[in-house]
Amino acid sequence: MPETTVAFLGLGQMGLPMALNLQRKGFSVTGWNRTPEKGQPLVEAGGRLAGTPREAVRGADFIVTMLGDPAAVRQVALGTDGFLAACRSGAVWIDASTIGPSAAREMAEAAARARVEYLDAPVLGSVKPATDGTLTFLVGGNPEALTRARPVLDAMGQSVHHFGAAGQGAAAKIVANMLTGTLVAALGEALALADGLGLERDAIVRMLMEGPAGAPIVRMKAPLMQSGDFPPAFQLRWMEKDLGLALLEAHRLGTALPAAAAAHGAYAAARAAGLGDQDFAAIAAFTRSVARGPAGPERA
Amino acid sequence: MPETTVAFLGLGQMGLPMALNLQRKGFSVTGWNRTPEKGQPLVEAGGRLAGTPREAVRGADFIVTMLGDPAAVRQVALGTDGFLAACRSGAVWIDASTIGPSAAREMAEAAARARVEYLDAPVLGSVKPATDGTLTFLVGGNPEALTRARPVLDAMGQSVHHFGAAGQGAAAKIVANMLTGTLVAALGEALALADGLGLERDAIVRMLMEGPAGAPIVRMKAPLMQSGDFPPAFQLRWMEKDLGLALLEAHRLGTALPAAAAAHGAYAAARAAGLGDQDFAAIAAFTRSVARGPAGPERA
Amino acid sequence: MPETTVAFLGLGQMGLPMALNLQRKGFSVTGWNRTPEKGQPLVEAGGRLAGTPREAVRGADFIVTMLGDPAAVRQVALGTDGFLAACRSGAVWIDASTIGPSAAREMAEAAARARVEYLDAPVLGSVKPATDGTLTFLVGGNPEALTRARPVLDAMGQSVHHFGAAGQGAAAKIVANMLTGTLVAALGEALALADGLGLERDAIVRMLMEGPAGAPIVRMKAPLMQSGDFPPAFQLRWMEKDLGLALLEAHRLGTALPAAAAAHGAYAAARAAGLGDQDFAAIAAFTRSVARGPAGPERA
Amino acid sequence: MPETTVAFLGLGQMGLPMALNLQRKGFSVTGWNRTPEKGQPLVEAGGRLAGTPREAVRGADFIVTMLGDPAAVRQVALGTDGFLAACRSGAVWIDASTIGPSAAREMAEAAARARVEYLDAPVLGSVKPATDGTLTFLVGGNPEALTRARPVLDAMGQSVHHFGAAGQGAAAKIVANMLTGTLVAALGEALALADGLGLERDAIVRMLMEGPAGAPIVRMKAPLMQSGDFPPAFQLRWMEKDLGLALLEAHRLGTALPAAAAAHGAYAAARAAGLGDQDFAAIAAFTRSVARGPAGPERA
Repeated sequence: MPETTVAFLGLGQMGLPMALNLQRKGFSVTGWNRTPEKGQPLVEAGGRLAGTPREAVRGADFIVTMLGDPAAVRQVALGTDGFLAACRSGAVWIDASTIGPSAAREMAEAAARARVEYLDAPVLGSVKPATDGTLTFLVGGNPEALTRARPVLDAMGQSVHHFGAAGQGAAAKIVANMLTGTLVAALGEALALADGLGLERDAIVRMLMEGPAGAPIVRMKAPLMQSGDFPPAFQLRWMEKDLGLALLEAHRLGTALPAAAAAHGAYAAARAAGLGDQDFAAIAAFTRSVARGPAGPERA
Repeated sequence: MPETTVAFLGLGQMGLPMALNLQRKGFSVTGWNRTPEKGQPLVEAGGRLAGTPREAVRGADFIVTMLGDPAAVRQVALGTDGFLAACRSGAVWIDASTIGPSAAREMAEAAARARVEYLDAPVLGSVKPATDGTLTFLVGGNPEALTRARPVLDAMGQSVHHFGAAGQGAAAKIVANMLTGTLVAALGEALALADGLGLERDAIVRMLMEGPAGAPIVRMKAPLMQSGDFPPAFQLRWMEKDLGLALLEAHRLGTALPAAAAAHGAYAAARAAGLGDQDFAAIAAFTRSVARGPAGPERA
Repeated sequence: MPETTVAFLGLGQMGLPMALNLQRKGFSVTGWNRTPEKGQPLVEAGGRLAGTPREAVRGADFIVTMLGDPAAVRQVALGTDGFLAACRSGAVWIDASTIGPSAAREMAEAAARARVEYLDAPVLGSVKPATDGTLTFLVGGNPEALTRARPVLDAMGQSVHHFGAAGQGAAAKIVANMLTGTLVAALGEALALADGLGLERDAIVRMLMEGPAGAPIVRMKAPLMQSGDFPPAFQLRWMEKDLGLALLEAHRLGTALPAAAAAHGAYAAARAAGLGDQDFAAIAAFTRSVARGPAGPERA
Repeated sequence: MPETTVAFLGLGQMGLPMALNLQRKGFSVTGWNRTPEKGQPLVEAGGRLAGTPREAVRGADFIVTMLGDPAAVRQVALGTDGFLAACRSGAVWIDASTIGPSAAREMAEAAARARVEYLDAPVLGSVKPATDGTLTFLVGGNPEALTRARPVLDAMGQSVHHFGAAGQGAAAKIVANMLTGTLVAALGEALALADGLGLERDAIVRMLMEGPAGAPIVRMKAPLMQSGDFPPAFQLRWMEKDLGLALLEAHRLGTALPAAAAAHGAYAAARAAGLGDQDFAAIAAFTRSVARGPAGPERA
């Protein structure tokens, strides 16, 4: 039986470990990345690197994209030398990027015109689950295409939720990240308030982790906030973008999301202050620097 | 050995089950409530009811207060016929109300003048843990007084965190509720966005409960939000008050808490819209009603 | 010389007085409205009413639209029996609706395909300036088309600002309304705070009207807020929509507008509370009802 | 007739020109400033400088304070060597600082104990009206004391509004600044949005200045925002403080002010980003830097 071939476009912090899992689990992977040197580990694992997206997808059974934002996906798929025109008919494009439902539906239509099946399949989980192959995929698109894609997804993750037609996986993802991003911003505010109130950080962090708001992401990020060191598992600029996507969709629908809008504003300001490349938990450092303002009226 | 006597002031939804646990575990409890009929179950369990706070505290070893807000505590303790003047010297006042650090320090000073030990000891947990005796106490005040109060606290809860001097338990509590209240408001926004995006509620609720923001409070409140039925475990008006206390302290310190401020505004608007007596998870119903506005620009 | 013919689509609170000004100043106006009875005054002034948009535009030199939102414009222009297909080649479509730059550019493209010139020409000013013929037009589109349309605009308004290509008039309009809507929401907050602080309303309103923030809109709306009576010059639901359009464009651009987002949330909540059909100054009544919450911690 | 003597405490950007106006109009002024060299122009105009607040107020008929925040006023009046203890009985203390109603009432009580009359008399207007003697005073306190103080106030300003008992002038001031600060923050957002939409700055600034939101403060600050140069007439850190005072009072009352809270967060972030010493119009530069984020989803 011939090997299943996968083109993997976007070998960044998330994409590379995902592509490596595919290669290790028996798929024949051809990768592409804007800066090719980042793809070397794939070659070392037995995969190949292509010079252009078009070259990468030629003849591939599956195309996986893991790119930064809607503009990047649009460019790589539909721009000059976009890959869609070079896919073989019937290939399945698994778009693991977080681009929001509107852009996902636009991609699904473009794929259909090129006789390619499109699945929006953004992930929950950052670098560690990508490396461990324990991501969660939130999928929208044709159920038949999903059935065909299952082995590819299973090689990279541990669970798959199907939310309906094309765009609904992307929709579910921005809902999830809207909640996570707002929670982590609120955690940063809680710690800044605790500081101001003179509460000992160790004790307050432990209490919050064990308390009613002690979500997995709180248990993961609160220790970073305590240490003040934010190695990027998921960059703050991406969380800014994801909250922005949620708000874009909300405003398309005529909906107000006040807490999410406030959190988005905080991430945007933190990015403008130079924290965009750190982990999004660095929002706590920003909030703390804002809190250390001119003494309040009753701070003596 | 004589029985340890406890005066319990405030036999509401939280106070009554707490007082019952004390009575059942061997303390001799005299309760008081503004509307006395609510205290009947305490009498049935072998306790007594007093007609005034002063009468209730006479001779008591411990006084526990579980009242609605700083004004209520101030009134019952220091107002006309306030109980502080009637306490025996050396009694310990355990204030389980959520009143914020400033009011707690004010009470500690008033207690000291009356030769009473003050512990601010607000709780994490609502009606069910109050009934089961599994509350968490966040305590500020004299360690020696805390040692003496331990058996009383242990009869009502399962864990005790000591955060320092008087006011620091209250401080930790408003930090905790600030985070919980903002998370639940954000959960309501996430579900309103999911509705607008056409995502099936069951699937999205399951995904959020299992995902990175799947805190205990999310797993507790998301099903209520799905059902649309909000029997009050913790009334929305109390969450509005607690976020307000957090913001009051923040502004005393000169600190901005944008996401918490947005959440507070949402609870206040929901209370103005008539949802104040429902569980605070009803914020989701309010956000949903706001979201169902005039169709957005791209809703066709 | 033959009369210049104008089709006027949308004879609502704004559209009707605008159409009447055109008819009175010598244009031959054929109006259309979804509910035809509202157009009667135009007939009484010598104009005509058509049964459908298509019938109205047949042979017209100019088409003016004054409709509620992007969906309504899209429907009337491009939907089943949309008028664009029935316009004579070379006609000029003046779209005075507030629909935002994206929808305006979409309309400009559709118009170009139908060989119709499109000007987005939303207005500053509400019912009174519409009646007096003193509106301000913010225009985007072809300068030559604007030159041809000048006499039509001059019959309805007193000044015209040209902001560039199609969509830029719509862009300027949402910028203007974003600022006005946020200012009026802030004015409502200022008065609610003044109430809470026990300041006499007459004195505070006078001071604010004469002070640094005493904009024309403040001098117009503060007296309504004082009286508590809000006859609709510009309905609150339209201000909600306009702020929503501004935020939609902002999120397309990746931009955070925190104060505008907060104001939008307030208008949305006020509309959900049943104030959508009143003047947008009714935001003050909503903010006041929210402010009258459970007494704050220091309100005794 | 003996000269009327005035002690003027706080010879900063506002205080110095105010003191100079008093000296020039015939009062005998003794100034004090933490950094004495700033007071030299007063000596050159014929006044005196004292080494301490106590020395300055000795024998004075009036004491005027123009200090930065409640903590500074508390320190100078009540701290070690605070001036109140050294005032002659019956002197009138005119506090032109912006400290909010709670601190003003606290000062009024302290003054009463020292047999000094207290007027809270914060001003509308910044450096230019302070220099021209055209400030507006918002006064709270005893009407009789105000009558006595009128000549002093008239030497520094052009109008006086009396709002009631002590604290009510301070209350009116924070209401006024809450509105002004939110309007200027919204103006910065409007210009950032206009930039993103590609609108020409000159045209949009002109339109906003002439439009419904064209308040005096808009006509004053929009040109600074256009030029990008922000010489401090009123420092951004003071506007952050004033909005913080408004929010502190609001939270004491249990009131939510969402737009003001969002604006306060923006000023706080701008101050943390290093803009605190510039004019508060620099909020526009901050908002612009935040807006220039990662391209939005549809900026392609």
